[in-house]
Amino acid sequence: MPTDTSPPVTGRPDPGVLLAPPARPGDPLDAIDTPALLLDLDASDANVAALHAQAVAAGLAVRAHGKAHRCPRLALRQIAAGAVGICVQKVGEAEGFAAAGVRDILVTNEIVSPDKCLRLARLATLPGMRIATCVDDPLQVERLAAACASAGSRVDVLIEVDVGQQRCGVETPSQALAIAEAIDRAAPHLALRGLQAYHGRAQHLRGAGERAEAVARAAAVAREFRAALEQAGHAVSEISGGGTGSFPNEAGAGVWTELQAGSYALLDLDYRANAVDPAAPRLRQALGVMTTVISRRAAHAVLDGGLKSFAVDSGLPAMRDPRWKVVGLSDEHTVIRPLEGAAPLALGQRVILDPGHCDPTVNLHDWIVAYRGNTVEAVWPVLPRGASR
Amino acid sequence: MPTDTSPPVTGRPDPGVLLAPPARPGDPLDAIDTPALLLDLDASDANVAALHAQAVAAGLAVRAHGKAHRCPRLALRQIAAGAVGICVQKVGEAEGFAAAGVRDILVTNEIVSPDKCLRLARLATLPGMRIATCVDDPLQVERLAAACASAGSRVDVLIEVDVGQQRCGVETPSQALAIAEAIDRAAPHLALRGLQAYHGRAQHLRGAGERAEAVARAAAVAREFRAALEQAGHAVSEISGGGTGSFPNEAGAGVWTELQAGSYALLDLDYRANAVDPAAPRLRQALGVMTTVISRRAAHAVLDGGLKSFAVDSGLPAMRDPRWKVVGLSDEHTVIRPLEGAAPLALGQRVILDPGHCDPTVNLHDWIVAYRGNTVEAVWPVLPRGASR
Repeated sequence: MPTDTSPPVTGRPDPGVLLAPPARPGDPLDAIDTPALLLDLDASDANVAALHAQAVAAGLAVRAHGKAHRCPRLALRQIAAGAVGICVQKVGEAEGFAAAGVRDILVTNEIVSPDKCLRLARLATLPGMRIATCVDDPLQVERLAAACASAGSRVDVLIEVDVGQQRCGVETPSQALAIAEAIDRAAPHLALRGLQAYHGRAQHLRGAGERAEAVARAAAVAREFRAALEQAGHAVSEISGGGTGSFPNEAGAGVWTELQAGSYALLDLDYRANAVDPAAPRLRQALGVMTTVISRRAAHAVLDGGLKSFAVDSGLPAMRDPRWKVVGLSDEHTVIRPLEGAAPLALGQRVILDPGHCDPTVNLHDWIVAYRGNTVEAVWPVLPRGASR
Repeated sequence: MPTDTSPPVTGRPDPGVLLAPPARPGDPLDAIDTPALLLDLDASDANVAALHAQAVAAGLAVRAHGKAHRCPRLALRQIAAGAVGICVQKVGEAEGFAAAGVRDILVTNEIVSPDKCLRLARLATLPGMRIATCVDDPLQVERLAAACASAGSRVDVLIEVDVGQQRCGVETPSQALAIAEAIDRAAPHLALRGLQAYHGRAQHLRGAGERAEAVARAAAVAREFRAALEQAGHAVSEISGGGTGSFPNEAGAGVWTELQAGSYALLDLDYRANAVDPAAPRLRQALGVMTTVISRRAAHAVLDGGLKSFAVDSGLPAMRDPRWKVVGLSDEHTVIRPLEGAAPLALGQRVILDPGHCDPTVNLHDWIVAYRGNTVEAVWPVLPRGASR
């Protein structure tokens, strides 16, 4: 096959027509082009109000996790409802939220490539921007410092501590101390803000007691590291972590200063499989995916969304109408079977499904169709796939 | 929370900066920004040549399935290498490939909404366009006919027969005959081209014998439906189906006239788990995902791509270096552990992983970085997520 003679890469990957939104404000739900991501605003607003109220009552700030929805318009609503800012996992996400006007962003992740460090350092030059990221190795500190020196900016740093997640993070106080000293040496370009103490797995333990125990262990580790840093003269002004699945535990621990909840504005089947903590407000399912019946017979119907519309890492989606059972997905199809009492579905009929895992499901869609009752209220763009870089 | 006062939806969902490609032609692989989707052109070209040669030898046309890669530039290469055209699953994909110049497109799926029928009918008005779609219900025929009458165009139709997939498709010859008559009545706007006889599951049966049996049963069903239609005076000029996992079987069956293979240009771990058919050429792994080590300790390393870079519906990705084992993914992380003899990985080092399932993995990326040896040759755009509509 010949050597590629394509023109040089410039501009956009696709004809604009393909990015047309699936609905317009004022449309009835039955006019939405499918597959489409839906957000029930009444449910989402109620969830946001409930979690924010509980965090405020416990003296915690809410730093809404933008990784859950990647939607700048939704982040601005969470900030209007009291969140101090947002957190994200990627520099590309930080750039997208910053472009929409968000001015307090924490990257809850390690950055190591010089190019990405420079992009973050440049974001820090935006007027009014307060920005931070995590480190667990002196090399990350060194590269961030060099990038900030080059950009003439300052980035705050949280030392990530492994409080049970067994992923990133330092394991011993002496590692944390060495990093804190490296951060101090990089002043004024870097400043130690505190600790990242995130235990994502704890949020998905099914029993309320298991979650409480895991968070208590995480809190003990965070306390130990805070004490070691403070004894050595390093101020620890923030300890950031927690999330939707375990926030009553973090709120009650007296260690965390801010809560990194994201899924609470959306919800999914995996969080709903948790045994309810009596201390937590009931969160409602706000996120859905609308599909259309494109084929049907007596024993099943076939919907026009599959693995390219639903992430299945935490299980299959479920029909919002519980009289229909999802039996399988392929790239662009979901097969559903009727249970006792199911009303027949017509060819062309639209149905809504609840996703297994909200974050990677939103990442499969370009738009969030926000609705109340039977009417579309707004259509919000989602950051592109490239925001993972 | 207040009613949404966002400006009306217009234009693009994101700042253009986020869509910058992860590499430029001529870059060494170590300069690629991660996570990034990679295509080894030597492997892909060899796979394309081998499958096309076997299909030609068996008298079958290759209709390359664009759902696998959603990449117009790659489709044009497959056509240059002998494919008669492409197939897709969605009208949005058809629009994207048509915009890039592809002029023979089959939508291997049922379309039922009047809007989507009209979009397809409009595509059929493009000069030189040959377009077709599938039906399994008279309502789809009626709506397609109305759309083509409105657009002043003609669309070819394949009647989908359920040959074992148990998803879409008619189940009895009498259903097929009723649909064929409806198509005839819709002339000149619709024309019966033949049958869609696709058995995707057969491709993923592990044993070569199991695959051969499943395809033989599918062939028998397709023959029965062809005979019924021909006896009633309907010409069946094409029988389309088959794919990468089972193409030697379809090639030898004497029923299919064209092969809908897509994954062969990419490959994935799921296809590689099949026992090799001695009649099939060995296909090479061409698709990969490059990531960077962002955190590490003695017992594991953490990579900067997770569920938003790899589809895991068919299993976890695998490190191309077999001395490292993938132990878990979260949204933006993959944790890997060293096995016997593993060389240490440096912080910031780039590594390549092979995906479990190619189609939904490509769908997570904006760009394909096509390379030979250690050098980037081209960077090709992937159709946007909205192409699922």
